[in-house]
Amino acid sequence: MDKANFKAQVYAMQSGQRRLATLPPAKRNAMLLAISGALKENSQRIFKANQSDMERSKKANLALVLQKRLLFDETKLGDACEGIEQVAALRDPIGEVQERRLLDEGLLLERVTVPIGVIGMIFESRPDALIQIIALSLKSGNGIVLKGGSEALETNIELVAVIREALEPFSAGSDWIVHMESREDVATILKLDDVIDLLIPRGSNEFVRYIMDNTKIPVLGHADGLCAIYVDHEYDADLAVKVTVDAKCQYPAVCNAVETLLVHSSVAQEFLPKLQEALKPWNVLLKGDERVQKIIECAAASEEDFKTEFLDYIMAIKVVDSYEEAVEHITKYGSHHTDAIITSNKSTAQRFLREVDSADVFWNCSTRFADGFRYGLGAEVGIGTQRIHARGPVGLNGLVTSKWLLGGQGHIVAPYAEGRPFKHIDLDNDKSELYGGEE
Amino acid sequence: MDKANFKAQVYAMQSGQRRLATLPPAKRNAMLLAISGALKENSQRIFKANQSDMERSKKANLALVLQKRLLFDETKLGDACEGIEQVAALRDPIGEVQERRLLDEGLLLERVTVPIGVIGMIFESRPDALIQIIALSLKSGNGIVLKGGSEALETNIELVAVIREALEPFSAGSDWIVHMESREDVATILKLDDVIDLLIPRGSNEFVRYIMDNTKIPVLGHADGLCAIYVDHEYDADLAVKVTVDAKCQYPAVCNAVETLLVHSSVAQEFLPKLQEALKPWNVLLKGDERVQKIIECAAASEEDFKTEFLDYIMAIKVVDSYEEAVEHITKYGSHHTDAIITSNKSTAQRFLREVDSADVFWNCSTRFADGFRYGLGAEVGIGTQRIHARGPVGLNGLVTSKWLLGGQGHIVAPYAEGRPFKHIDLDNDKSELYGGEE
Repeated sequence: MDKANFKAQVYAMQSGQRRLATLPPAKRNAMLLAISGALKENSQRIFKANQSDMERSKKANLALVLQKRLLFDETKLGDACEGIEQVAALRDPIGEVQERRLLDEGLLLERVTVPIGVIGMIFESRPDALIQIIALSLKSGNGIVLKGGSEALETNIELVAVIREALEPFSAGSDWIVHMESREDVATILKLDDVIDLLIPRGSNEFVRYIMDNTKIPVLGHADGLCAIYVDHEYDADLAVKVTVDAKCQYPAVCNAVETLLVHSSVAQEFLPKLQEALKPWNVLLKGDERVQKIIECAAASEEDFKTEFLDYIMAIKVVDSYEEAVEHITKYGSHHTDAIITSNKSTAQRFLREVDSADVFWNCSTRFADGFRYGLGAEVGIGTQRIHARGPVGLNGLVTSKWLLGGQGHIVAPYAEGRPFKHIDLDNDKSELYGGEE
Repeated sequence: MDKANFKAQVYAMQSGQRRLATLPPAKRNAMLLAISGALKENSQRIFKANQSDMERSKKANLALVLQKRLLFDETKLGDACEGIEQVAALRDPIGEVQERRLLDEGLLLERVTVPIGVIGMIFESRPDALIQIIALSLKSGNGIVLKGGSEALETNIELVAVIREALEPFSAGSDWIVHMESREDVATILKLDDVIDLLIPRGSNEFVRYIMDNTKIPVLGHADGLCAIYVDHEYDADLAVKVTVDAKCQYPAVCNAVETLLVHSSVAQEFLPKLQEALKPWNVLLKGDERVQKIIECAAASEEDFKTEFLDYIMAIKVVDSYEEAVEHITKYGSHHTDAIITSNKSTAQRFLREVDSADVFWNCSTRFADGFRYGLGAEVGIGTQRIHARGPVGLNGLVTSKWLLGGQGHIVAPYAEGRPFKHIDLDNDKSELYGGEE
């Protein structure tokens, strides 16, 4: 599509999004189930498009692990449809009352959740991600401008076509979906801060950093996941070993795996050899500072190693002389994603939980728990290290904002300006009286 | 101060902010009261600086209304100190539990509020605003880079000096305050998106728009307040008149005053003459479209009038044939600030409250209620029309974000990855077990 046409499509989707935003929950859920049904019915069309993507990728010698992610077969379709049905079953994120206050007799204030508006999402090559993203947008009443990996282009085009057909019978239609088919489209949307309210990029650090650096649209995401564990001098050595091994080895290629280990000097002599022994089965490359190298045999850690997200079986280790030195290191080198302390002293732990300024701060457990599903958020939209809007693992709550509703009986400000007091009685956040719209 | 020095001061404040952020509430409140005490003790120094500002402003023929705002005397000092004491008495905004969930036996998740970090605030010429802003930042544990109007420069410099002296005995000191003394400093901070987490500009529409257009830092604020009232055909004429008069005339120079009136055609004949009569004492200039002009004698409204925030005794009026036409007008011309419907039909009202996508949407009451104090927020930081972060009137909650705390007993992810289920038991949001720090 040429650039002017593409832009026009993005602007035009706003009215589609508004129709979607105010549908009753039952209607949005019915649309979700219609999509799930249509995907199953049209599976052969989708598989055929996916075969074509697969063949192209084989010819281009795409890495086997990526080919595996690209493959969209009966199993993955089944899982994707089950995912849609789970999203349909989730509590409705729209019209929830967050605050409720009687300002004065007959003057009721409510703050209720509403969709953010239009979300831009750019993600990796898995076709199932496209289905999940559209489902979450539909559930939360948001318009979506989305782009998957170019390897999956034919599959994604076919998926969007099937989804549009499924939504045709519904009044809200599918105008709230815009599918980007080229990298130029991504460059275009970065400038559309008058239409797109939030960008959620997934992918390599470099890619996310590129998005963050080239747009004025708020970005939900994280460029880096440089997570640290600090092993305090008051500690249980076996617990510290177990947690560190899990945080490094359970899945090292992800953002919440640990990269830096800080060990208090008074326990380094005991802890480091035990840890090294426990890490042997995974062949972890340990890079230590000078003091570490005096205790265990390992590679030398450079300054750069403490700034590196290895995403691999590699860990940088440093001996520190105090809690303060550990926190200072994390503040200076960390990426404010997930950091943990291992200590048996509760007040040291609480101090760490207060003082370390990261999206997720843990005590005596693995950094790998930083995840929307593990947190019980129902769905994971992403993990954000920005400070404004949702922080850390983000569920459907990251796709909503709020507005204030005020219902009166002819109330005017004049008497209050002249001294009439407000009552300001906080009420329970049960059902909204003002939003309505469940029918 | 030269630019390099100023920048260095902004970067250096981060460690001061971190010290402030983790102080127990009692300590932050004691600092607030110390400021209030010092301001009273040093009132003569402050009044002297203010006299100098006043003399300069008189010579420069500053408008009388602005001179009145600039004046800082015994009364204003007393009010400002009372304001500080009220802020000290407010519930602590830091360490509040927003979510609490037992993920599994012994694995407790908490989402708690924390300061945003460093806030940039640029405001008008009232010296009392500087005091209020520093008080709110201190209460919420945020660093503050702030600039008042240049007319108040000498007063502001003296106020900051007195506040710094008052904070000297405290461990957190006053390094978390940076006072900008020139416009160049403002241009500098717009580029410091690696230190400043949120900007809150107050001032003219043009000024706020300039800030929004020239920074990547998130902005809390509103450039425009183009508020509308729609008078439905099912309505109480007296109520509609009363609310419209208040919304236009109670204080027309502010963002939540009504600018556009939309009237359903089937009641225009009855309503408009009544309204015109009621508006007479204020000499309101009415600008009507062609249909309005056939009913009452008034000026002609141009397309531009419906895009104009008059901030004066002027109102643009249009006759519409349906609810849909009214909502369409508001969507096209409004600024998503505050819009109201006058109707006696509850389901029409609910539909309006759902469908109008503004920060504040009202039913049968004046748009002038859109205000943090009237909403009972305790303090008003600003009114935001952005969609991300706090929307509408914003209290101290607009100065905090959250982080996730997870406390375990050596919990690792491996068994869950192999199928062990989580419990995910939601707990009451009472006191945090993990954050601590009240002592």
